[in-house]
Amino acid sequence: MNKFRASILVIGNEILSGRTQDANVKSLSLWLNQLGVQVYEVRVIPDEEKVIIETLNELRKKFNYVFTTGGIGPTHDDITAQSVSKAFGIKYEVHKEAFKILENYYQSGEFNEGRQKMTWMPANANLILNPTSGAPGFNVENVYCLPGVPSILKSMLGGLKNSISGGEPIKSLTISLRTVESEIASSLTKVQNDNQDVEIGSYPFFHAGKLGVSIVIRSEDQSKIDLCNSQILKFVISKKIEVVER
Amino acid sequence: MNKFRASILVIGNEILSGRTQDANVKSLSLWLNQLGVQVYEVRVIPDEEKVIIETLNELRKKFNYVFTTGGIGPTHDDITAQSVSKAFGIKYEVHKEAFKILENYYQSGEFNEGRQKMTWMPANANLILNPTSGAPGFNVENVYCLPGVPSILKSMLGGLKNSISGGEPIKSLTISLRTVESEIASSLTKVQNDNQDVEIGSYPFFHAGKLGVSIVIRSEDQSKIDLCNSQILKFVISKKIEVVER
Repeated sequence: MNKFRASILVIGNEILSGRTQDANVKSLSLWLNQLGVQVYEVRVIPDEEKVIIETLNELRKKFNYVFTTGGIGPTHDDITAQSVSKAFGIKYEVHKEAFKILENYYQSGEFNEGRQKMTWMPANANLILNPTSGAPGFNVENVYCLPGVPSILKSMLGGLKNSISGGEPIKSLTISLRTVESEIASSLTKVQNDNQDVEIGSYPFFHAGKLGVSIVIRSEDQSKIDLCNSQILKFVISKKIEVVER
Repeated sequence: MNKFRASILVIGNEILSGRTQDANVKSLSLWLNQLGVQVYEVRVIPDEEKVIIETLNELRKKFNYVFTTGGIGPTHDDITAQSVSKAFGIKYEVHKEAFKILENYYQSGEFNEGRQKMTWMPANANLILNPTSGAPGFNVENVYCLPGVPSILKSMLGGLKNSISGGEPIKSLTISLRTVESEIASSLTKVQNDNQDVEIGSYPFFHAGKLGVSIVIRSEDQSKIDLCNSQILKFVISKKIEVVER
């Protein structure tokens, strides 16, 4: 669909173990849609340096943008910054600007060793400011490293907006129907075949005790969405299927 | 940690677009932990045949097990079965046993073209029975294909349990502390260095208006977990940090 493609690299044993439910993929994807960037691949990998380096080097060549989440805190399992440095072959060192930010952020005597660790980054990385908890993320080339805590990550996106160039925002229309997928499958296939550059998805749902199907139409071009919508409503009416709110 | 490793391949534009929050990674991971299988990588990819084939062929060589979710329904965007057939170079055809199951499941006259599509699979695939909505998943070699709807997926795991060989169940202990990560970072690093084959993670939380840190210790060996636990409690006590419920 879109020529600007991103991948999200979730770094965290806690997601792989099932302990923690990821929430960042959804918020990053929705945010990137608005900027005209399509998330094309997500990977979740463990806190292991070799895996991080290899995966990052693969993804940053393949996509316009890579967003990493997690692993930039003060503890031993936070190894994203050193791994990104190695992936790029850039020196891993104290970032002077980040050091100043955190020195000012914490009260006198509280800027301890653990907190100072959060100022170690690839040399000359661009900082991504953190209005919630001080410690900045960073950007090297097309790689943007963000924290794993969802509320902190979200608060950092505002400051990042102008760094990301995308295409037209990706628009989306959802039509929810009181039906089952098999009733509309062949008609919907016809609409998809007639509109190959539009993404049409079909998703069953079970809501308030009743089955239904949501059809999602996605494109940068509103007129193409409208055309698909009218073609879908045509068969919906002729099949006497009820359109519902979802 | 564990020598039995799995990957989860989430097939679905709806996750990448941010429309839908994935819930299957968490439930599959927790279920696999109990079977002594560690989820080592998750990928989320679009509903595109070429991408599915390439990713599946990479993952199935790399891991003991691959679990796919999504794309086995009746609509045009459900292309998992045909893609898996191509990935293995196996004929894509009507599965007689699946056909019988769905023929019996639906009332006379309701087993329409869309529903019959769900009986097309790689030839001679092993079926994964579906106690919720009839349409089975399937298994070829080390690849297990499950639906995307979380409640249906969960209901199918029971029947799958005996097919999966793993090691010792992966056990986990969480210690939640009223502190911040930077206060415990260096002590915790020491415990990790002294217990390199145990996975120790540190996760900040914000709960009921208060900050805290959960330390998660994971291993198949309970005695190793206990040893780490005692080493952690030792520094927690000497630092006068409060242990809290989480």
